[in-house]
Amino acid sequence: MKMSSAAGSGRLIVVSGPSGAGKGTVCKRLIERRPEIALSISWTTRRQRPGDIPGQSYHFKSVEEFDALAAIGGFLEHAGMYGSQYGTPRPFIDENLAAGRDVILEIESKGARQVILGGEYEVVSVFLLPPSMEELKNRLKGRSSESEESFSRRFQSAYSEIDFAKEYDYIIVNSDVDQAVRALESVIDGSRFRTERAGELLKKLKEEPTP
Amino acid sequence: MKMSSAAGSGRLIVVSGPSGAGKGTVCKRLIERRPEIALSISWTTRRQRPGDIPGQSYHFKSVEEFDALAAIGGFLEHAGMYGSQYGTPRPFIDENLAAGRDVILEIESKGARQVILGGEYEVVSVFLLPPSMEELKNRLKGRSSESEESFSRRFQSAYSEIDFAKEYDYIIVNSDVDQAVRALESVIDGSRFRTERAGELLKKLKEEPTP
Repeated sequence: MKMSSAAGSGRLIVVSGPSGAGKGTVCKRLIERRPEIALSISWTTRRQRPGDIPGQSYHFKSVEEFDALAAIGGFLEHAGMYGSQYGTPRPFIDENLAAGRDVILEIESKGARQVILGGEYEVVSVFLLPPSMEELKNRLKGRSSESEESFSRRFQSAYSEIDFAKEYDYIIVNSDVDQAVRALESVIDGSRFRTERAGELLKKLKEEPTP
Repeated sequence: MKMSSAAGSGRLIVVSGPSGAGKGTVCKRLIERRPEIALSISWTTRRQRPGDIPGQSYHFKSVEEFDALAAIGGFLEHAGMYGSQYGTPRPFIDENLAAGRDVILEIESKGARQVILGGEYEVVSVFLLPPSMEELKNRLKGRSSESEESFSRRFQSAYSEIDFAKEYDYIIVNSDVDQAVRALESVIDGSRFRTERAGELLKKLKEEPTP
């Protein structure tokens, strides 16, 4: 968590976790309940899958378009995953933070670590976990788009990613979507009052002319 | 915040702040909204004031009774304030924490620091602030029980206490009681998901036999 930003300004809420933890569902549900929070939509070069809605799931882009934005530093983070590129375009982030809105980034671990370690913005980072590896397996198997090879690659990757959970500020277990969404809301609300954010406020109180 | 306790166990929620910040009102309202949280009632040797309800505001005790409990280590913390003794009796705390309930301690700064630095329990510490020193002055003046001398002593003490705010995990400004209570609720709820509490959970996931 970066400490320097003012109490009233927007923050990056980074939500990550292994495939199958339910990041997409939880973030979508959160935005429905809390429309004042902005949801960043990533660019990707991966092929559109059944069920994907362009501009909602992702902005689907060609490799050339993606590389052109990357070349001018237009991504907050970008990373390759399973042969495709994923990236968070900066303008949406900067506009919303400047307007005092929190912005949710639902991103993969590699990108999340870039944002957390980057120190450029105030970040609240949340790692979403499945209740058990058995349940994660079932969720990944339930995805019709997954071949057997793709499944075991994702599962192995999920297993390794758990080692990085400790780098995040918060960990939420997603066994029930409603509960996980409420947990995320309380994390977003409660972390506003972290002492690290109150520097300006304390200074102002001490500088008031005493009666 | 102590890191070692298990995710499901009760925590001490320490609420402190200068006289006039509104600790008592905020904690009382919180308990009405969240009856599953236990409120610790301090022992004190100070005289009962108009409006005090024995057993609700404080347990009013003689100096002898107080000293007897102190002598057997029966207080989690105790401290002198303006010539009287205040202390948090242990048995209530231990029973509730063991039953998995969070316990609120609404206590003065000296005692709060003993609990925070003690490291004996998992603590979430919250410092309550007035919106301005001017407003604090008005609140203290509004207390019918305050003499002019007592007022200026409390005001000077409040002014110095602000320097300790940074030792707490969270800072909440009490300009509106309802808002302050909701802020405290989100702090209590959100801090359950701090990564430091998830050690056991991560260990369990990694130890599951992989499919």
